Amino acid sequence: MSSSYLNDLLTTVVERGRMVIDRNRSRRPSGRDLAELAEALVTEPGEASGMALAQEILDGYAALDWAGRTSVFRSLAQGFGPDMGRLESAAHAFVESGDEASAMELHRASEPRRRELIRRLNRAPGATAALVNMRADLVARLGDHPEFAGVDRDFEHLLSSWFNRGFLVLRRIDWSTPAVILEKIIRYEAVHEIQGWEDLRRRIDPPDRRLYAFFHPALVDEPLIFVEVALTTDMPEAIGPILAEQRTPLDPDRATTAVFYSISNCQTGLRGISFGSFLIKQVVEELAQTFPSLKTFVTLSPAPGFRRWLARELEANSPEAVTPADRKVLEKLETPGWHEDPALLAEARPVLGALAAHYFLRSKTVRGTPRDAVARFHLGNGARLERINLFGDFSDRALSNAYGLMVNYLYDRRQIERNHEAYAKAGTIAAAPAVRRLLRRTAEPRQLAISDE
Amino acid sequence: MSSSYLNDLLTTVVERGRMVIDRNRSRRPSGRDLAELAEALVTEPGEASGMALAQEILDGYAALDWAGRTSVFRSLAQGFGPDMGRLESAAHAFVESGDEASAMELHRASEPRRRELIRRLNRAPGATAALVNMRADLVARLGDHPEFAGVDRDFEHLLSSWFNRGFLVLRRIDWSTPAVILEKIIRYEAVHEIQGWEDLRRRIDPPDRRLYAFFHPALVDEPLIFVEVALTTDMPEAIGPILAEQRTPLDPDRATTAVFYSISNCQTGLRGISFGSFLIKQVVEELAQTFPSLKTFVTLSPAPGFRRWLARELEANSPEAVTPADRKVLEKLETPGWHEDPALLAEARPVLGALAAHYFLRSKTVRGTPRDAVARFHLGNGARLERINLFGDFSDRALSNAYGLMVNYLYDRRQIERNHEAYAKAGTIAAAPAVRRLLRRTAEPRQLAISDE
Amino acid sequence: MSSSYLNDLLTTVVERGRMVIDRNRSRRPSGRDLAELAEALVTEPGEASGMALAQEILDGYAALDWAGRTSVFRSLAQGFGPDMGRLESAAHAFVESGDEASAMELHRASEPRRRELIRRLNRAPGATAALVNMRADLVARLGDHPEFAGVDRDFEHLLSSWFNRGFLVLRRIDWSTPAVILEKIIRYEAVHEIQGWEDLRRRIDPPDRRLYAFFHPALVDEPLIFVEVALTTDMPEAIGPILAEQRTPLDPDRATTAVFYSISNCQTGLRGISFGSFLIKQVVEELAQTFPSLKTFVTLSPAPGFRRWLARELEANSPEAVTPADRKVLEKLETPGWHEDPALLAEARPVLGALAAHYFLRSKTVRGTPRDAVARFHLGNGARLERINLFGDFSDRALSNAYGLMVNYLYDRRQIERNHEAYAKAGTIAAAPAVRRLLRRTAEPRQLAISDE
Amino acid sequence: MSSSYLNDLLTTVVERGRMVIDRNRSRRPSGRDLAELAEALVTEPGEASGMALAQEILDGYAALDWAGRTSVFRSLAQGFGPDMGRLESAAHAFVESGDEASAMELHRASEPRRRELIRRLNRAPGATAALVNMRADLVARLGDHPEFAGVDRDFEHLLSSWFNRGFLVLRRIDWSTPAVILEKIIRYEAVHEIQGWEDLRRRIDPPDRRLYAFFHPALVDEPLIFVEVALTTDMPEAIGPILAEQRTPLDPDRATTAVFYSISNCQTGLRGISFGSFLIKQVVEELAQTFPSLKTFVTLSPAPGFRRWLARELEANSPEAVTPADRKVLEKLETPGWHEDPALLAEARPVLGALAAHYFLRSKTVRGTPRDAVARFHLGNGARLERINLFGDFSDRALSNAYGLMVNYLYDRRQIERNHEAYAKAGTIAAAPAVRRLLRRTAEPRQLAISDE
Repeated sequence: MSSSYLNDLLTTVVERGRMVIDRNRSRRPSGRDLAELAEALVTEPGEASGMALAQEILDGYAALDWAGRTSVFRSLAQGFGPDMGRLESAAHAFVESGDEASAMELHRASEPRRRELIRRLNRAPGATAALVNMRADLVARLGDHPEFAGVDRDFEHLLSSWFNRGFLVLRRIDWSTPAVILEKIIRYEAVHEIQGWEDLRRRIDPPDRRLYAFFHPALVDEPLIFVEVALTTDMPEAIGPILAEQRTPLDPDRATTAVFYSISNCQTGLRGISFGSFLIKQVVEELAQTFPSLKTFVTLSPAPGFRRWLARELEANSPEAVTPADRKVLEKLETPGWHEDPALLAEARPVLGALAAHYFLRSKTVRGTPRDAVARFHLGNGARLERINLFGDFSDRALSNAYGLMVNYLYDRRQIERNHEAYAKAGTIAAAPAVRRLLRRTAEPRQLAISDE
Repeated sequence: MSSSYLNDLLTTVVERGRMVIDRNRSRRPSGRDLAELAEALVTEPGEASGMALAQEILDGYAALDWAGRTSVFRSLAQGFGPDMGRLESAAHAFVESGDEASAMELHRASEPRRRELIRRLNRAPGATAALVNMRADLVARLGDHPEFAGVDRDFEHLLSSWFNRGFLVLRRIDWSTPAVILEKIIRYEAVHEIQGWEDLRRRIDPPDRRLYAFFHPALVDEPLIFVEVALTTDMPEAIGPILAEQRTPLDPDRATTAVFYSISNCQTGLRGISFGSFLIKQVVEELAQTFPSLKTFVTLSPAPGFRRWLARELEANSPEAVTPADRKVLEKLETPGWHEDPALLAEARPVLGALAAHYFLRSKTVRGTPRDAVARFHLGNGARLERINLFGDFSDRALSNAYGLMVNYLYDRRQIERNHEAYAKAGTIAAAPAVRRLLRRTAEPRQLAISDE
Repeated sequence: MSSSYLNDLLTTVVERGRMVIDRNRSRRPSGRDLAELAEALVTEPGEASGMALAQEILDGYAALDWAGRTSVFRSLAQGFGPDMGRLESAAHAFVESGDEASAMELHRASEPRRRELIRRLNRAPGATAALVNMRADLVARLGDHPEFAGVDRDFEHLLSSWFNRGFLVLRRIDWSTPAVILEKIIRYEAVHEIQGWEDLRRRIDPPDRRLYAFFHPALVDEPLIFVEVALTTDMPEAIGPILAEQRTPLDPDRATTAVFYSISNCQTGLRGISFGSFLIKQVVEELAQTFPSLKTFVTLSPAPGFRRWLARELEANSPEAVTPADRKVLEKLETPGWHEDPALLAEARPVLGALAAHYFLRSKTVRGTPRDAVARFHLGNGARLERINLFGDFSDRALSNAYGLMVNYLYDRRQIERNHEAYAKAGTIAAAPAVRRLLRRTAEPRQLAISDE
Repeated sequence: MSSSYLNDLLTTVVERGRMVIDRNRSRRPSGRDLAELAEALVTEPGEASGMALAQEILDGYAALDWAGRTSVFRSLAQGFGPDMGRLESAAHAFVESGDEASAMELHRASEPRRRELIRRLNRAPGATAALVNMRADLVARLGDHPEFAGVDRDFEHLLSSWFNRGFLVLRRIDWSTPAVILEKIIRYEAVHEIQGWEDLRRRIDPPDRRLYAFFHPALVDEPLIFVEVALTTDMPEAIGPILAEQRTPLDPDRATTAVFYSISNCQTGLRGISFGSFLIKQVVEELAQTFPSLKTFVTLSPAPGFRRWLARELEANSPEAVTPADRKVLEKLETPGWHEDPALLAEARPVLGALAAHYFLRSKTVRGTPRDAVARFHLGNGARLERINLFGDFSDRALSNAYGLMVNYLYDRRQIERNHEAYAKAGTIAAAPAVRRLLRRTAEPRQLAISDE
């Protein structure tokens, strides 16, 4: 309310400012026009006319099609880098004097002019949301336009400062939440798709279900990231019972375990700005305070890269882990419906278990980190790889990504920091003994994974 | 509520993070310890332990005395500038290659390390308020410690980005406002002191009085700047009737004039980040929308530098404006109580009028701007110098600053941008004809001031 | 939030009170137990134990099945009437003395004891909602149990006092409203069924659609009555275009007409307590203030009793209005799909028009009021019967109730009171000339309907 | 906000309704006019014009002076009793038939017509507050006008229904509360006067001080009753340390005792409708939940009637309790400043102690209840008379009412109901053994007071 009231008023200020700027508004803005306006904005000293200019640029941008927007980014990439003349002088001056004053001038001169442009754009009402959307457009073009990387870096730098953790607000989402936000939860859920309003209700309304999101004051109705939680009495092995349509809810005061079964980032435009670790830790504290009976905080997570890694193993001349015997079993899993054959499941279990343990504990990227993106996230947060659940999710996606495999990562509040530091400094993977026991005996040193045994 | 809830939770996260960091907490932190913690924070990769470190630094800083805090700023000035080794390499690389990639590295290398430090400090709960207070401490030391200027520039740069106009929220302050905010209004009023709760009530509760403030989401209970408004039927000549204890309030729907009679910045820690222009313009729009009968938006402002300028004139060998006849009259105004002598007021009127007109319209600083700080602010916003009110305020302060003189600056919504641009580009001062007529005839070209004649 | 906080605390008070009352809580309460508890509550002097008793009665009632609840109402009807002994004494005393003191004692003695019971039940947390639901149960039994009429009257009397107009709060319902309320809007819509969340969204989210509801502070999440409004440029003839899935919304600042196309009472338990007239009038004022361009406030209403009246006409020996020629046409309208035959529509139009005019303007109940319940409501509010739209709604319900006929009732703010008074005092029906012209010429005096001709 | 928005809209509805009622509004309304309007309102069938009438009556009443208002109450007393003709018929009919239908008609006929009038007045916006104020005017006239007692009873009956416990909302008052409410707390404090804003702040802002109030949704900014609480580590003997200007606040998590040291009813217009018992019990639960360390809930209360009772004892021929020896000591306490003489305090102590114990435990009103109004309130709530603190308050009021004596009443949650029932049924006073030991040995049976010995 106060926010829309604010916007109304600001819009009026902007309207007046606009009357001063004598421009032909009847032409549809092209990318080139916007570049000129941007040039004016970067050099404009007046605040109210600056706001009007900023609004005009954002409106004009919003009216452009794909090609028009691409050309805006091209202008930003080519025409709004540092002022090279000034920079060269500054560099020479610094090389001569080496003092801090010339270093500061060097810093100012080397700043791409688009940073100041983005800061000034952000003065218009509603601009922060528009800039996040603009960055999403940019991210979508990076594959085809590597030359936009510098523009992207500048957006990320400023958005990262504005979406600083200190400005985020945690809110619980439940059946009392406005529909305008709930529909976005439905849209943004990226792990276990929400099938409509009834499915959503099953995830937020029962007393043993919770959903928390981070919001930013400048994006009132837009969640940034959210996590779905089930309160249970056991660490779960499979997603089915959690999402089941017919369930008897648990009295949350009797729950011992909080299961984080889905985490979704909502804003492509904020890519690279990490909220997940803060969210999980804050929700752990919130839940621990609300329900003293909770002892275990654990995820039920997918393993998005497991089957892709196995596919590469199968194609490799000298695979890391796959044996000829494994290969035979894995071939049987190419048959659709394999997961409905109990005999096949029993045969596959030891093979997939050993390979999964290798995938998580031993196989590494060139940077020395685990291959699985989800594993990297949770281990980096200080969680422990607690259990591998073969056959936890038989949805199409989970079958095609991981043969149905799911993982529990444990957030033990007393161990989080120790695990995190060991991971950050030495790449050490915290894993439960049971996970390590899945590994086949090899010559490899055991100490790669630490445990509580 | 949500904010304190948030703080509670975050505090808990921080507490846990702190348990990991094994430090001797029993010693009272010294400036040196904080510098070590700051060094750790700048290089710390872990987020939760980073938050704990940030909190520890902010707590430790808060516990320091004046000297301890000064030594923190000394550390920041000396030890957290750019990494000079990296910067030198980057500068040489750029001088050689001259390409944008090396310019970017130059930008990163030339950034003082304290900027990243301040960004990371800002992740702790409540950090933004603490950083604003820290900057206020810094500003108080700049006179004695010019070597802290670089640190101050870095604080200002980041605070300016975080207190971007797009993040500010306008709120009306009235008798329904929480006392915790009202007491700050009493404390921060810098122009016409508020004498207590009853005086405050006279300024915010009657239907013909308004007070508006800007707030920032991260400083929930702290106004950043506020303006006090009286709704009247005439442009006022004096402050007395506006602040009178006994008044019959005007029906605001019959008011024709909104008088901005006091504007106060609240946060020394945000010095240099300008909110006033936005505030006035937004309040003008808000009032115009609420009360369609309002036609005139005008200030009743002090002239804080008038008498100081006259004192210098009187000491000068060849004064700009003061004549020997003026000097005789001004000498009489040295007698205490002169303003209660009607004959003396009559004698002083033409002299002060002519000198005030010269002071506002002709006398300039070395930068070519008006000498009066309040005049610079309103003229820079696009207001017009509408009327000089000799003897508008006989309070001690006003007598000692300006012989009791007050000024009306007019915010004419149709002229604001034109005035602003003329002022910004050519230093042209918009003034009403009546003000210009106060000037003594000289050879000076008339066109220095524009008017609507 | 504050409400649930309140409930939590109250529940605790009640819990403690309950410990004192030594009862065997393991038995499932029967209707008889509740009657005993009710007897105790009516005579209980202690407040906290009274609250505990009230809570126990409400909980016990909620756990009963249909028969159990019926037996509760039987107890209330038989055992909680006036104290007949006391009443007889009081009546004799009054007959003797005739003074006001004995009249007052007579008033107290004649009050059914269940009124005090209901008042005391209302002290428990959440009791008001429970009592509204209990009344709904009672209403559902009135047909089979005419002997409960006195109990119903007592509920209605007290609920009417508690749901006094002065306590109601108007709220706009839109896409920012909590889902918990929106789902009730979907459930309670009684005129044009809402087909799900997307249909709901079409009715509340576009800028030219509005929905307003009355709420009561003690029933936080329960709308009492709501009205759906479409902003248009014409008085509409049919419901189809208003509910269409594909529409281009109108800029509401360009709308001239507000159409009230659906009004739904939500609480059976509040039957007989009328909110509709207040709701419409307040929404008219709200809309007129928000959109100065609105000139016309009109309904698009069903005629639920038209066809039932015609059926009785057709069966009557000497019908009021139906001619033999009419009868032949009406017989053709018994064929399913008749409304898709343009020739038949053309043939039926004059017949249905004349009969509808008779139905609305001339045919009366034994009380002398119009036969149509919707007409009685709007005419009683002071609206004018503005237009009869034959074939405005071809839904199954509208066909079966009214051959698809719809009605516009006009709320002309300058005429509302005059119309209302003429209707209330003389039964005069305000109708537009065009409606009256549909009447067949008869000997009946024209002045039955007033108009603005 | 929503409330003022509601009021704005309702006012508009009323304005329109008023245009219809053709009356000469230029004359100032007299009491007689209002009686005519009231007669019209009671018989008016139209809702909107009814609201306009109600508003006109309330506005007219507000404009009357003391005599005018008195004459309104006279009209209500004389002209708005039951319809005596109808009542007589009903009484005869009932005497004849004796059935429930005629009992119901008797109930309706015996209702004073002013009850329906008050109900209809309550439909106007803001009417509930106006009716509470009208009742306050009425209460102020009851002494001189015993003939208004019937009118008062009708107001009380309806206000009691509308201010039912189920509709009240508990709110904590602190330094974040709007000033408009805080100033009322200052004004309404009836026990230990609040000396201004700084004194108020000392009572609500420190972490070991709390203030809670009940509110009603229809009186948004008006507290109904409030209680002030100090969190301490001991049951306090005196008020001085609690109200001291200079104190070191206690960490509330270390408090063991909550002291209710002031309870003030705010609305004379709600006299006879008791909120205090609910308030104390709800605040006890709230505090117990917030601070698990709290074990003792106790008041520090005045004894307003002690000295008045002693004065009557001294004048009596055969006093209940005062001995000749007592009389000599009490005479010394007539000297101003006696409480500053340590020797005199020591001499007075045993005498006042024994007499106070008699006053609280043995002396009774004609109804058999304790003489002290504060004692009746707390004992009736189920509290226990825990300790008599001679010389707990040397303020003028406390000296003149009770020789400075104060009392602790203990709210022991496990005993409240038992104490309440024993008091309600048998008049038994729960008192600590130490209080009973103050009694002089007499022949009186000990069992008058129960204790936990």
